[in-house]
Amino acid sequence: MSASRPSSAALTPLRHVVAAQQFDRERLSELFRLSAEMERVRSGGGGQLLPGRIMATLFYEPSTRTRLSFEAAMLRLGGQVIGTENARDFSSAIKGETLEDTVRIVAGYSDCIVLRHSEEGAAARAAEVSPVPVINAGDGPGQHPTQALLDLYTIQSEIGHLDDLHIVMVGDLSHGRTVHSLAYLLALYRGLRVTLVAPDRIRMSQGVIEHLLKHGADVRETEDLMGAVTDADIVYQTRIQVERFSEPWEEAEDQRRHFRITEEVMTRLPQSAIVMHPLPRVGEIDAAVDADPRAAYFRQARNGVSVRMALLQTLLGR
Amino acid sequence: MSASRPSSAALTPLRHVVAAQQFDRERLSELFRLSAEMERVRSGGGGQLLPGRIMATLFYEPSTRTRLSFEAAMLRLGGQVIGTENARDFSSAIKGETLEDTVRIVAGYSDCIVLRHSEEGAAARAAEVSPVPVINAGDGPGQHPTQALLDLYTIQSEIGHLDDLHIVMVGDLSHGRTVHSLAYLLALYRGLRVTLVAPDRIRMSQGVIEHLLKHGADVRETEDLMGAVTDADIVYQTRIQVERFSEPWEEAEDQRRHFRITEEVMTRLPQSAIVMHPLPRVGEIDAAVDADPRAAYFRQARNGVSVRMALLQTLLGR
Amino acid sequence: MSASRPSSAALTPLRHVVAAQQFDRERLSELFRLSAEMERVRSGGGGQLLPGRIMATLFYEPSTRTRLSFEAAMLRLGGQVIGTENARDFSSAIKGETLEDTVRIVAGYSDCIVLRHSEEGAAARAAEVSPVPVINAGDGPGQHPTQALLDLYTIQSEIGHLDDLHIVMVGDLSHGRTVHSLAYLLALYRGLRVTLVAPDRIRMSQGVIEHLLKHGADVRETEDLMGAVTDADIVYQTRIQVERFSEPWEEAEDQRRHFRITEEVMTRLPQSAIVMHPLPRVGEIDAAVDADPRAAYFRQARNGVSVRMALLQTLLGR
Repeated sequence: MSASRPSSAALTPLRHVVAAQQFDRERLSELFRLSAEMERVRSGGGGQLLPGRIMATLFYEPSTRTRLSFEAAMLRLGGQVIGTENARDFSSAIKGETLEDTVRIVAGYSDCIVLRHSEEGAAARAAEVSPVPVINAGDGPGQHPTQALLDLYTIQSEIGHLDDLHIVMVGDLSHGRTVHSLAYLLALYRGLRVTLVAPDRIRMSQGVIEHLLKHGADVRETEDLMGAVTDADIVYQTRIQVERFSEPWEEAEDQRRHFRITEEVMTRLPQSAIVMHPLPRVGEIDAAVDADPRAAYFRQARNGVSVRMALLQTLLGR
Repeated sequence: MSASRPSSAALTPLRHVVAAQQFDRERLSELFRLSAEMERVRSGGGGQLLPGRIMATLFYEPSTRTRLSFEAAMLRLGGQVIGTENARDFSSAIKGETLEDTVRIVAGYSDCIVLRHSEEGAAARAAEVSPVPVINAGDGPGQHPTQALLDLYTIQSEIGHLDDLHIVMVGDLSHGRTVHSLAYLLALYRGLRVTLVAPDRIRMSQGVIEHLLKHGADVRETEDLMGAVTDADIVYQTRIQVERFSEPWEEAEDQRRHFRITEEVMTRLPQSAIVMHPLPRVGEIDAAVDADPRAAYFRQARNGVSVRMALLQTLLGR
Repeated sequence: MSASRPSSAALTPLRHVVAAQQFDRERLSELFRLSAEMERVRSGGGGQLLPGRIMATLFYEPSTRTRLSFEAAMLRLGGQVIGTENARDFSSAIKGETLEDTVRIVAGYSDCIVLRHSEEGAAARAAEVSPVPVINAGDGPGQHPTQALLDLYTIQSEIGHLDDLHIVMVGDLSHGRTVHSLAYLLALYRGLRVTLVAPDRIRMSQGVIEHLLKHGADVRETEDLMGAVTDADIVYQTRIQVERFSEPWEEAEDQRRHFRITEEVMTRLPQSAIVMHPLPRVGEIDAAVDADPRAAYFRQARNGVSVRMALLQTLLGR
């Protein structure tokens, strides 16, 4: 009713989901409202919101978790799925077909395409030629927008608000695509404090820090995990991805141990705070922490289905 | 009503789809009528024509495109799909199980089997033992009947008739299974003219040419692509499949360039004509041609779903 | 009504299916009653018993047959399937994620998990942490309970009773997981006679024999297949799994030939008896035997779907 707060109908229709930057506060708010609605659809045993619709998963590199999450989302909406687990090794790609041709063909079989690719910019190229919506499920060092969206939704859903947050980001902040995208999204909100806890070799890139500062966030870097968490709302832990280093890094294991979330770290963390992790983890969070109600990482993974349902419904529903 | 034109009910029921030769003019006409109906089902968001039915895809060699097309067809009909992307590498086959045993077992799980195999005759062997319909999705150098059917359907749907056509076949006419099968189907129709444009090394096999001649077609061979297309109804381009040559063929790249469909070729082609390609292409058609309305190859791929829906409905519907 | 024979409602609800030993006579009787009902659902073209429910297949080693059988079962019930053909080679597992973490995450996407793993005890570990039912689809040298259940169901359905049976087990009785599990289940019934026909090197393990004896079965070992079958109810043939021997066994082929089910063996077998095999077979049963109505192995494979439907319905239905 009020002119100052446009209704969801006023949003430009979303055609593709290529990058987290497509989402402003308003669109995020609408998406999260719908995601919460989708949780109710899920607990009611799924719905018939997209009957007869087909989602194609085109994965040029494996990512079982992401694929299964998207497939579950489409099926919960009453839709169907076709796809391939490893498009790169298969048939037309090895014969030299371009990504654009493959996308145009698969678009003739389906109502939307979920694309995972190793090359940055692949999703944008696909969206350029596709007559059906394309969702980026990760394009190499580029974007993985649905991960960023589910992370932000988890914060909203667990903490209850997105302004005035203190987030502590721990681990490999240099290669971690998820922390970069999340930082960009969080920068849309007021009163943000970000504490970056990383070994010197894998610190947050200067570009992200400058973006945060430009948007008014309070940014601090430290190696003191214990001190950082005492007034945190969120501790976002990431895996130290040894496979990403061009040269061997002998201290990787030591560093992982040093920046691990242990029961001791948990004693310092406020009761209302949460621990997040994009998973898989390989030791960065002690298994003993799992039973703590503040351990939100499995709920975070579960939220991926609701957020992806909301995106699919937005792209394909009428 | 008229005794001279038997209704579709008079056709012998189709049990399996093994070879394009199973289809005569009457059966093709019935299939294409149903395929056109399926296009309407698709634009209506799919139907519930085969609810509860299960199609198994048993692919002993990968062919992502063909598999996805079949799966989309079954799902659009309201059916379901089980299957394996690479049957050859998996479990029972490596233990030495025969194709016949695998087929008998999978038939116990499903209502029809779509088989892709590297050995000629595999589909016939499967059909021999299977209690449920088998559809040949390509058996090595043998048949790939659904490709031939969708090619012919595309011609019917784009040009409007199948008699009195002039088709120009270009590229690798020696290894190209699709042009062989299409030639056999086209030979069923009157007033056919076929112009074969191929490098000397990969000319159309004498057997196919004789078959065309015997059925009254006018067949010409030339290396002059520009001249050939001026009064063509269809230019059917195929990929020069370098991987099929036992010895290296150094001029392959040159030849591919020489027989490429370029914008210049398109200026010679009549406005009512179409360009087809079984895809994937690797440079035989310039990307600049894609925007031309006569470029029918992506519509051709899309038609595969309608034709496969029609086949599944014929085999499994009551 | 009678207090002495509790109704099915009195059974402790089944949470997970990890081992065949979870099933006593009463639970088996209830499961087989439901399995027979499922055969009717199947011949009616499937049902809508589990609409909207999602089964995840998490296969760390390939077993196409088992996976397809489970998927068909879930789809016949009106449910849906997500899964991976080869979890081990894919993404999170190679990054070092524990089975427990993967299971917790996949449980957030689905309503039950069918797990195949190469390590004994994997299913029990998964069941320990999973908030949704886990079904063991084989854990290495451990259990493969649904195979044992479908074997027993096949006997019940083909012979009509489970007491007073004479079963002849032939082949690799040492490595054959299926004959061990079946033996344990059969030991629950009265009047059991077991004849074990195996080469010396791959005789039935002493533990299984003792278990049978302790439960009152009459157990005999022989190498005389011809003599053994003359009053058999069931001949259960297994494959000699040469890949399981640590050292080469040169006589394997000879032994396989010696213990093969031939037409001659069939002439000695009573008319009311059946031949079973867990499949795949590689020569242990002559193809000529397939046409004999007593050859029950393809029906046995087909029964797998009904038994798995019954299990899924028990775990997920209300």
